[in-house]
Amino acid sequence: MAALRVSRISLLRPIPSGARALGPKARPFSVSAVRTAASSLFPDEPARPTVKTDIPGPVSKKYIDDLHEVFDTRSLNMLADYNKSIGNYIADPDGNVLLDVFPSCYAQIASIPLGYNNPGLIAASKTPEMVSAIVNRPALGNFPPYDWADTLRSGILKAAPPGLNQVFTAMAGSDANETAYKAAFMYRRQRERGGPQAAFTEEELNTSMNNTMPGSANNLSILSFKTGFHGRLFGSLSTTRSKPIHKIDIPAFDWPQATFPQLKYPLEDHVAENEAAERASLEEVEHLIQTHHAKPAAVVVEPIQSEGGDNHASPAFFRGLREITARHGVLLIVDEVQTGVGATGRFWAHEHWDLPSPPDMVTFSKKAQAAGYYYADPALRPNLPYRQFNTWMGDPVRALLFRAIFEQIQQRGLVAQAARVGDYLYAGMQRIAERYPDQVANLRGKDRGTFIAFDSPRRDEVLHRAKSLGVNVGGSGATAVRLRPMLVFEERHADIFLEVLEKIVAS
Amino acid sequence: MAALRVSRISLLRPIPSGARALGPKARPFSVSAVRTAASSLFPDEPARPTVKTDIPGPVSKKYIDDLHEVFDTRSLNMLADYNKSIGNYIADPDGNVLLDVFPSCYAQIASIPLGYNNPGLIAASKTPEMVSAIVNRPALGNFPPYDWADTLRSGILKAAPPGLNQVFTAMAGSDANETAYKAAFMYRRQRERGGPQAAFTEEELNTSMNNTMPGSANNLSILSFKTGFHGRLFGSLSTTRSKPIHKIDIPAFDWPQATFPQLKYPLEDHVAENEAAERASLEEVEHLIQTHHAKPAAVVVEPIQSEGGDNHASPAFFRGLREITARHGVLLIVDEVQTGVGATGRFWAHEHWDLPSPPDMVTFSKKAQAAGYYYADPALRPNLPYRQFNTWMGDPVRALLFRAIFEQIQQRGLVAQAARVGDYLYAGMQRIAERYPDQVANLRGKDRGTFIAFDSPRRDEVLHRAKSLGVNVGGSGATAVRLRPMLVFEERHADIFLEVLEKIVAS
Repeated sequence: MAALRVSRISLLRPIPSGARALGPKARPFSVSAVRTAASSLFPDEPARPTVKTDIPGPVSKKYIDDLHEVFDTRSLNMLADYNKSIGNYIADPDGNVLLDVFPSCYAQIASIPLGYNNPGLIAASKTPEMVSAIVNRPALGNFPPYDWADTLRSGILKAAPPGLNQVFTAMAGSDANETAYKAAFMYRRQRERGGPQAAFTEEELNTSMNNTMPGSANNLSILSFKTGFHGRLFGSLSTTRSKPIHKIDIPAFDWPQATFPQLKYPLEDHVAENEAAERASLEEVEHLIQTHHAKPAAVVVEPIQSEGGDNHASPAFFRGLREITARHGVLLIVDEVQTGVGATGRFWAHEHWDLPSPPDMVTFSKKAQAAGYYYADPALRPNLPYRQFNTWMGDPVRALLFRAIFEQIQQRGLVAQAARVGDYLYAGMQRIAERYPDQVANLRGKDRGTFIAFDSPRRDEVLHRAKSLGVNVGGSGATAVRLRPMLVFEERHADIFLEVLEKIVAS
Repeated sequence: MAALRVSRISLLRPIPSGARALGPKARPFSVSAVRTAASSLFPDEPARPTVKTDIPGPVSKKYIDDLHEVFDTRSLNMLADYNKSIGNYIADPDGNVLLDVFPSCYAQIASIPLGYNNPGLIAASKTPEMVSAIVNRPALGNFPPYDWADTLRSGILKAAPPGLNQVFTAMAGSDANETAYKAAFMYRRQRERGGPQAAFTEEELNTSMNNTMPGSANNLSILSFKTGFHGRLFGSLSTTRSKPIHKIDIPAFDWPQATFPQLKYPLEDHVAENEAAERASLEEVEHLIQTHHAKPAAVVVEPIQSEGGDNHASPAFFRGLREITARHGVLLIVDEVQTGVGATGRFWAHEHWDLPSPPDMVTFSKKAQAAGYYYADPALRPNLPYRQFNTWMGDPVRALLFRAIFEQIQQRGLVAQAARVGDYLYAGMQRIAERYPDQVANLRGKDRGTFIAFDSPRRDEVLHRAKSLGVNVGGSGATAVRLRPMLVFEERHADIFLEVLEKIVAS
């Protein structure tokens, strides 16, 4: 077993001396004695990271040079050896094995939910059902497998947010959002026409073929927030407002953007200011809904702006957004591509908000491995077939995997674990922030599971040093360090991260 | 084995009498004696279709009603039982087993390359490599597997069109095209700026965040052809000009469209007219390149307009397009999402054209199961990392499957087989067209493998009756019947189709 080899390397081989070797000493906080059910999932997971070379090391460099000839590697962070990766640890071909605390920005960008080489998922991937899904890939809109409803009900829909009982399946976050936008545009125009029975006019049919109004709804829009991220295809990129490098040189729709509240930390010291910021943001949303030349068919929002630097807002803000959108007949799309599937301590992050009525659509991808949007209102199915349609409409392979992921999350109580470990991690972070306030600022993510972030003036140095000390970390925004452990992250892993972080900020 | 059960049903059970039972008699053309290597692939494939009930039958109806509660089924054509489907035959839960001649429009929309439950692909789907790709899904731009270059070189890149040696991997046809468009926009703006070293201006950086010029390239476009289809996300849909139902109510970019030559058939009777139509189309392209307010960064074209009704043009037309685009510094993107991977009798349909220089980008999906775009010019990699990027950037599961598909195609000579069976099928079609000219018009696709289509004034009736006679057929455009057999389609399958078609048109 490759997995066994990893644990031998890091546990049985003599640990080299020097900064790279993380011995069992110098732990700032005691290793938690808590052993959850999840522990037994990865009996061969290493106890500590092992760093043997610079990263990338000589073997990796050779592979990277070769890969670069045919595939752009300039965004490459670490060349992985997934055969040797296990649980919370990612390995490379040079024998380095890092604690992958941050599968968000870097390691798989928050998309690995339950650890590398998870035995339950391996079992699910070997079933005859999975094999059939690989080799007999259906066009789900035309020729669904007869048991597709069962696959959905026992998986994707079992995991559905409260109040949403239907799904349109997609391939990844970008097209999950774009198909949700399309549903919103069709819904809006259908309402304007007088309902699903109203026919298209000849003029609408003809002009749609020329990309002009009234057939193309160029007077409608999707309203998004500044510093938000919703994907990188043409429609989703028009709502993405994260960084110029994501957007420059690509044509974009002239759609409105509102300011996302920029909260000040610690929250308890800035209550009035933060309330004012949220109120101003909501007023701006309402103003744009009322006045923008391209009327918003929907507002799209992330529960926590992730790519933009882990920007939070209060449940009251989101309840306000739900109220304003409902009052103006504008749909509310909650983009849970990064926040969904447990890491915030609730299965869906918007469950923290106590909304009076559910979002109209909730999009998902990443940790779900599958993608798409949930909804409930039957009117969100366009009035005719083939309006919301494409060849594959998702991938049953990934739908089956999401089912297995959801089962394991439920059986092992991993959402509650993320809440508990998140509290533990946050408390540890708070202690470091108090001791090194210049190095760890704007700590945020309290009561949001392991969705924790902070700002560091030495951000890039922190990321680099953390890696050399065996911890794979991600950054986002300009100075933010985002923590994105998997759902199988436990207190003992948090201890290693906190030890490494303190070592870095103290130096 | 489920597969065995199928053959028992159709071969050993008494064949019911009546129109639905296709006995071994009444074959208009002799069954070919040709037995290729491919025959042995599916020893349990039925000899004939079996139709036991209306489609959908009572069992299917129950499943469909149930599915419709959570998943829009209005585009559903046939509920499939993939466990019982085999080779060229698709089964349903009512015991119907249809010859799936047309995996284009209907059965999986031309995306099943090598038959249902292909044993070689089943073997590939059970390897440890595949299992790892399922459970350890990487963010390929950040953390590629160390052997990703090898996976590409032995698969996706081994299948690359002549002259193109690099790839950007994607999820499906729409985002394959959209990422190709993004590459074209960045390339164009980079050239306008004076090359990859030229920096963005502050104004460009700032305006890009507001979706306005000069940061957003709203003065650039992608030129596409009328009746073309390139996908249904916002950028690709702006280039799709197939049907209003695909486009209505969705905002679209004001991009130019040129007329695709509308050839008259039989070709040999309309030589001068068709040449004039192609010349006029090329002149229109050049005129739009020179005058349209949104300057085309690229022209995108299908080798055979598929969704638009199987519209062909001559190799000379495409050579002209290559010449005009090259002369004006406009990129040529050939969309081989539907035409690629062998069915036209060449691996890539554009290999029929004898181009003086390759297309700048070639997009692929469907039968490749994987997706993305091929290119060669290093300048098509944007000047900075993270400009062309997303979380998953494709799916190694599907990359491994494409490798297995390509290996089987090569080992069994399936491209040559598609050419040979296509000639056989075309000849059979021609005989029917001569006998029933009112029913089978504009036969097209000579020398294009099995990519054959015709127009039928009774198109919808033909499709419906074919299904009741055990053949699953697809339509496209207004009157077109498109044939899209898989690459494992042989003369003996063609005989069944021709027999059924003649039965329908004669009635």
